[in-house]
Amino acid sequence: MTSELGVKLREDMLIKFIENLEKHLQNLRICLDYHQIEEFIKTIENARCIFIMGAGRSGFIARAFAMRLMHLGYDVYVVGETVTPRISQDDVLISISGSGETTSVVNISRKARDIGSKLVAITYGKESTLAKISNVVVVRNAKIKTQNGDNELSKIAPLGTMFELTTFILLDGLIAELMSRKGLREEDLLERHAVLE
Amino acid sequence: MTSELGVKLREDMLIKFIENLEKHLQNLRICLDYHQIEEFIKTIENARCIFIMGAGRSGFIARAFAMRLMHLGYDVYVVGETVTPRISQDDVLISISGSGETTSVVNISRKARDIGSKLVAITYGKESTLAKISNVVVVRNAKIKTQNGDNELSKIAPLGTMFELTTFILLDGLIAELMSRKGLREEDLLERHAVLE
Amino acid sequence: MTSELGVKLREDMLIKFIENLEKHLQNLRICLDYHQIEEFIKTIENARCIFIMGAGRSGFIARAFAMRLMHLGYDVYVVGETVTPRISQDDVLISISGSGETTSVVNISRKARDIGSKLVAITYGKESTLAKISNVVVVRNAKIKTQNGDNELSKIAPLGTMFELTTFILLDGLIAELMSRKGLREEDLLERHAVLE
Amino acid sequence: MTSELGVKLREDMLIKFIENLEKHLQNLRICLDYHQIEEFIKTIENARCIFIMGAGRSGFIARAFAMRLMHLGYDVYVVGETVTPRISQDDVLISISGSGETTSVVNISRKARDIGSKLVAITYGKESTLAKISNVVVVRNAKIKTQNGDNELSKIAPLGTMFELTTFILLDGLIAELMSRKGLREEDLLERHAVLE
Repeated sequence: MTSELGVKLREDMLIKFIENLEKHLQNLRICLDYHQIEEFIKTIENARCIFIMGAGRSGFIARAFAMRLMHLGYDVYVVGETVTPRISQDDVLISISGSGETTSVVNISRKARDIGSKLVAITYGKESTLAKISNVVVVRNAKIKTQNGDNELSKIAPLGTMFELTTFILLDGLIAELMSRKGLREEDLLERHAVLE
Repeated sequence: MTSELGVKLREDMLIKFIENLEKHLQNLRICLDYHQIEEFIKTIENARCIFIMGAGRSGFIARAFAMRLMHLGYDVYVVGETVTPRISQDDVLISISGSGETTSVVNISRKARDIGSKLVAITYGKESTLAKISNVVVVRNAKIKTQNGDNELSKIAPLGTMFELTTFILLDGLIAELMSRKGLREEDLLERHAVLE
Repeated sequence: MTSELGVKLREDMLIKFIENLEKHLQNLRICLDYHQIEEFIKTIENARCIFIMGAGRSGFIARAFAMRLMHLGYDVYVVGETVTPRISQDDVLISISGSGETTSVVNISRKARDIGSKLVAITYGKESTLAKISNVVVVRNAKIKTQNGDNELSKIAPLGTMFELTTFILLDGLIAELMSRKGLREEDLLERHAVLE
Repeated sequence: MTSELGVKLREDMLIKFIENLEKHLQNLRICLDYHQIEEFIKTIENARCIFIMGAGRSGFIARAFAMRLMHLGYDVYVVGETVTPRISQDDVLISISGSGETTSVVNISRKARDIGSKLVAITYGKESTLAKISNVVVVRNAKIKTQNGDNELSKIAPLGTMFELTTFILLDGLIAELMSRKGLREEDLLERHAVLE
């Protein structure tokens, strides 16, 4: 058994997970809808302030993206955090929800639309309630929570895992693109990075 | 320019980012230290409660991992959240820090060690303060904040990006392994998944 | 001017605020509905787990109360935090909302009711949507956000300030009552108090 | 027993708690150090940005204060939240800690001092580490966690309860004073109040 440790883990799922994610990344790379991404970027660049939200693990990804946008110099806020002000019609709300049906995300996104703010949905559900009320829909092709068809994948990447990871990756790739467009270097980001931590 | 949109983004950084990450994943997969991972798993399985912490984006990854551990049925807490109780010597603290030198993470980890809790470090810095005081060190090979040598990578994946993403992926792969060992199916996780969101 | 500092602040609002709060406290004390409080306590004592929520400053008060309930040994969770599991029909949700109309609080409370969980509303709005769907309503007599009648009070305690403060005080008083009923001493609470902070 | 409910709660601690708090408020009002408060206000008014921190329940009070400062139009950030940028020497950090010895609060406050930021401590511990490194110390006279002398009070207001409540009240009173100095009305605060909640 000890010698086995050098070869593989008991259930061998970690490797299967990484291999599977590599395939998802190839697919993400090949199937990128540049028109969609460009629309997303323009919405970010034209907004006075950027508001971001998501529930559960999508919420952590939303916050990781928000933090990098702050490092790039954008005025960005996370819905529900302490210093988040009133949203206006000059602002954009970016809502992350795999299914596009998460109660709080849909209700709050609708409120933003009613105020006249731009709304960007990042979702798997291109026919979802969230997608239907959004100005820009960034459709993510990844298995999500409610799909039960792919039995093998549900063992490797349960619930929203693939949606969450590929969304995180797409958004970090977008940061690289925005950073380049703004002519910023790593040092410029570091200058805004919190030190009280 | 409009026609260009179908071919690539202006700066072409999104694709470069995904390609680069794919290489990092291959590397992660090939260089996995199974002995280290097995030690990490055993520490989780033997703990009464699991405490997790990280600062900044590492903190969001820590919380995404904590949420999945809860879905798997573990007693898990995030340092700094409301209902987190006192840690004991039967518990483990998992600390995520790229450099292994983040002030709050190092100080709090030291406190946990003094109490007698097990300490797992997930870090790039295998010679770091955090690594030195930890029982188990999961070393992650990824560019981190303080490394400035690789100029090209700093444009594609600034600051701790690569460490954060590959750590997120490693931890989600570990969830797959733990899920299989516990004989759990996606439905079992769903049963514990929050619905008030 | 310097000599003035010893006498009062320029606008003298801090003193007015404390005096005003003292009157609110007398009123809170004299008008306590013990039957209502007793029902609230019974609901807490009979619940398997306690879930708590609130938006904005009411959310911070909800979390401060949740933390003390944890110190008393209850299984308690804050809606939206990382390790919060699925709510069941054996659980109670305590929702704090001044107006009783906060979108997210009302929608999530309704979801909890549909699942069959007990619902406690802490609100000023005894005719509000939240109050109507709740099993127990703890009515708080305090000026709230939407009331504009009392012009003087709006300068001293703007928006939900009075509701938030008197709710915080009521809930901390309840902690004293629960602590005494359970025969717990300060040291027992300290034993559960987080040390990793 | 049912008839008793109309008269008092079983342990009668809720009333005792409110009565005790009323005495603390009278004391807070009578013993206010206006010079100290004025210094605190000047520090807030002269800062480019305001950073706030606290651990545990003091952290929730810190955030409730931060939210109101945002409503008043100040640039304010909570240490540890997503969009909090790097602190500079033109900024102020307000640290809330009953004992003035909370590990994370002391370490992070020291870091802010080293950078050259102004530091305001709100604490019971006027001889504490936090107080010693601060530019302005707002001393709060309230029983705190580590004091075990007053046995009766420890049953009514265990751990940091009195410090937390009277600090919350002092800070909300300060909001009234700042609001008046800036000539703001409730409507002006409402205009900045988050609606996405």
